Amino acid sequence: MRGIDFFFNPKVVAVVGASRRPGKVGYELLRNLREYFKGRLYAVNPEAKEILGVPCYPSLSDVPDDVDVAVVVVPAEKVVDVAEEAGRKGVKGLIVISSGFKEVGPEGAERERRLIEVVRKYGMRLIGPNCVGVYVPKSGMNTLFLSRERQGYPGHGFIAFASQSGAFGSAVLDWAAMRGIGISKFISYGNKADVDEVDVLKYLVEDVDTRVITLYIEGVERGREFLDTLMEVTKYKPVVVLKSGRTEAGARAASSHTGSLAGSDAVYDAAFKQCGVIRAYSMEELFDFATALGMQPPAAGDRVAVLTVGGGSGVMATDALVDLGLKVPRLSDDTVAKLRRVLLPFASPYNPVDVTGSAVDEHLVEAIEIILKSGEVDAVMWLPYYMVPGITPELNRKFLSRVRKVFQEIGRIVPIVGVATGGSYTAIYAREAESMGIPMYISPERAAKAIKALVDYGRWLKRSGTFDYYIEKYFRV
Amino acid sequence: MRGIDFFFNPKVVAVVGASRRPGKVGYELLRNLREYFKGRLYAVNPEAKEILGVPCYPSLSDVPDDVDVAVVVVPAEKVVDVAEEAGRKGVKGLIVISSGFKEVGPEGAERERRLIEVVRKYGMRLIGPNCVGVYVPKSGMNTLFLSRERQGYPGHGFIAFASQSGAFGSAVLDWAAMRGIGISKFISYGNKADVDEVDVLKYLVEDVDTRVITLYIEGVERGREFLDTLMEVTKYKPVVVLKSGRTEAGARAASSHTGSLAGSDAVYDAAFKQCGVIRAYSMEELFDFATALGMQPPAAGDRVAVLTVGGGSGVMATDALVDLGLKVPRLSDDTVAKLRRVLLPFASPYNPVDVTGSAVDEHLVEAIEIILKSGEVDAVMWLPYYMVPGITPELNRKFLSRVRKVFQEIGRIVPIVGVATGGSYTAIYAREAESMGIPMYISPERAAKAIKALVDYGRWLKRSGTFDYYIEKYFRV
Repeated sequence: MRGIDFFFNPKVVAVVGASRRPGKVGYELLRNLREYFKGRLYAVNPEAKEILGVPCYPSLSDVPDDVDVAVVVVPAEKVVDVAEEAGRKGVKGLIVISSGFKEVGPEGAERERRLIEVVRKYGMRLIGPNCVGVYVPKSGMNTLFLSRERQGYPGHGFIAFASQSGAFGSAVLDWAAMRGIGISKFISYGNKADVDEVDVLKYLVEDVDTRVITLYIEGVERGREFLDTLMEVTKYKPVVVLKSGRTEAGARAASSHTGSLAGSDAVYDAAFKQCGVIRAYSMEELFDFATALGMQPPAAGDRVAVLTVGGGSGVMATDALVDLGLKVPRLSDDTVAKLRRVLLPFASPYNPVDVTGSAVDEHLVEAIEIILKSGEVDAVMWLPYYMVPGITPELNRKFLSRVRKVFQEIGRIVPIVGVATGGSYTAIYAREAESMGIPMYISPERAAKAIKALVDYGRWLKRSGTFDYYIEKYFRV
Repeated sequence: MRGIDFFFNPKVVAVVGASRRPGKVGYELLRNLREYFKGRLYAVNPEAKEILGVPCYPSLSDVPDDVDVAVVVVPAEKVVDVAEEAGRKGVKGLIVISSGFKEVGPEGAERERRLIEVVRKYGMRLIGPNCVGVYVPKSGMNTLFLSRERQGYPGHGFIAFASQSGAFGSAVLDWAAMRGIGISKFISYGNKADVDEVDVLKYLVEDVDTRVITLYIEGVERGREFLDTLMEVTKYKPVVVLKSGRTEAGARAASSHTGSLAGSDAVYDAAFKQCGVIRAYSMEELFDFATALGMQPPAAGDRVAVLTVGGGSGVMATDALVDLGLKVPRLSDDTVAKLRRVLLPFASPYNPVDVTGSAVDEHLVEAIEIILKSGEVDAVMWLPYYMVPGITPELNRKFLSRVRKVFQEIGRIVPIVGVATGGSYTAIYAREAESMGIPMYISPERAAKAIKALVDYGRWLKRSGTFDYYIEKYFRV
């Protein structure tokens, strides 16, 4: 079967069912594509010569170019005919946005069966039906149809996101755009008549632009293949899954939503554990974990140092880490003595290492060197409190250049995750730290869960025998 | 003993240890007070006639006015003398920002003992030492000393926040300012040599500007009185507590941070439950819960309806609610039939009630009326998805005016909590809904926890026999 890369990087796209009326799906979708897409674009509509400046033809067969992807937004009852025409024209694949298939009952299911038949006959691939399709910032491929006033589109980044739910997927993209989180590939496959999680996983594990794969799923059909694929993929790239329909009531809701059987959560949970999947329980966790896994190496063990300017936050960080089963070990006498030498007399050098609100930049810079060189921890939670008087706007630069120097000396990278609780001033420096490679969270509780993801993934890679390969590939000093 | 209201609403404040040097605590603090405080303000510094336009005197006794509060920022070793002078002058209370007391060892502890002695001798009250003091948007009383470039200050609101940690307290205020969360009173009491949680609780329960009390604590000294007070206070106002030092490692860190004994968390947890305290496990939960408790009535039971535009989010909402022990009951045949009559044919009317992404405003408006009138649920989670094409900018207004009409008809208010996952466009309407009284959360998981807080508090009020009183006082139709 044909691969699916052409869906994300097509040279030629035609929108079948393009519309001249603002507000209609066929208009908004074309408008998005026209603005974002870098390849050649055509519209298909028997009543127009051009729409939004895009050349328009009465039918797909009239389009004077080799079309890679036909984006189909015609009414459900016309979709099979369009597929037939696309097949004859040699179109590689269809993205069927239209609804009115399996999700609406037996008549729709029969229509979906016929659609699949046509797609198979011509060796095409199909995303959908009943989906919002794909969004790829790099190629500009964008089949989302929400008007741009209502929907933001994130820039290029290292996170791939596949969502069984189109509405949730759109909302998440919109949220990611606002938060400044980048996306490599987004895909919503709706009814999954052809392309499903298995195809997407196999594609994304090879995709050089994707560092972390995130999935929102309600239920899967090809269960065995899904798990086998996960088992392979997670050896090379982290996969974070948000699975809903976990409770009985939720599963009932999922079944009436997409018709997919959610299955017992205990079964899913055991399977995910066996396959090295990092499980998230909310949208925020999905991206918190993905951000940490993309920016930082997995942890080689479960010992965490907490380096803080605020005593209270250090206590909360410790609680949160220990709650998750991680260790916040008291540092050795030798390390404590070294810390005492560089810190303020009333600082606390044990772990949490609390440099106190009277600290200046250099206290954090010296402390991180001692902590990293001690070899006594496998990860660091860093709570800089940019707002206190002694911390300067140069902190991130000074801290991270020292960190890099130490990594050179010790010959490996220890994961560091940051916390920046505060308002607008703090947010500026938190974003700066992120642009320098340290994921920053608003609270120690969220940072602790992100560290847990790094620890779990490190454990999985070791068990899989791919830890060293992974580090060498992505996190060489 | 004197009450503590004058700390929050003083007529006259003097800053002892005011400084002319930008960056110094005595300068930044005076600058904040000068900008915010609406009463009469004096500076005390032997070397200046005025600082920042504030009249300055060589000593407190030279100030030609009746000083209510002396804010003390002189070095620790001079604080006792200042207290003596304040006592002789008839000052009502001291806020001692200076550190160098109990937290630095035996010498400091002895100094603190003498300070308390002087305060008692003159019948004064004391906040601190080693604290950041108070912030009251309404009166402009503000003893925080972080420069305003680094620290935002929230506006007036219904949440009181008392924090054992000054740094964490400041960071939270800063965050609240950015998020648009209002504060009635903020207090950080540091070493709690005099004013502590017990005093603050007794004060805030009577404070008309405070609807919800939030506390960050690491440990308490007057344990019995604290619990007795909580038991009384929670009958009339919700109290949300973030208690750190929960784990053994965290408790060790807390002890080296503030010298307070964290105590066993199991003991605290049982005690909190017995006293009707709503427990939060992160800063975000603390304010998520406080927002819901201030804006919405407690729930009369644990049955929740989910009304959603996005199927996936409806599933996640159901999972999250059921995970927390709440019920998402299938609605009765009668109610389902009524919903079917007003919703789209492929909408799902059971609960979650999923109006689908093809819905228009009226589907949500009609659905909420049927749900509220059914009497089959005690709370509603509402997921409007402002971004979908059929939802207009008028939705909030239409939805909430219908809700109010229905409340009039049924003679009571059912709590409604909203979810708005998305970016900038969505955020505009989420904020609008909040300004209309519906707390809005970014994810169903957070909204579910907020509903749990409303259910737990309702249960507590019923057990206390104050449910009807509370509803009558704050949530009369």
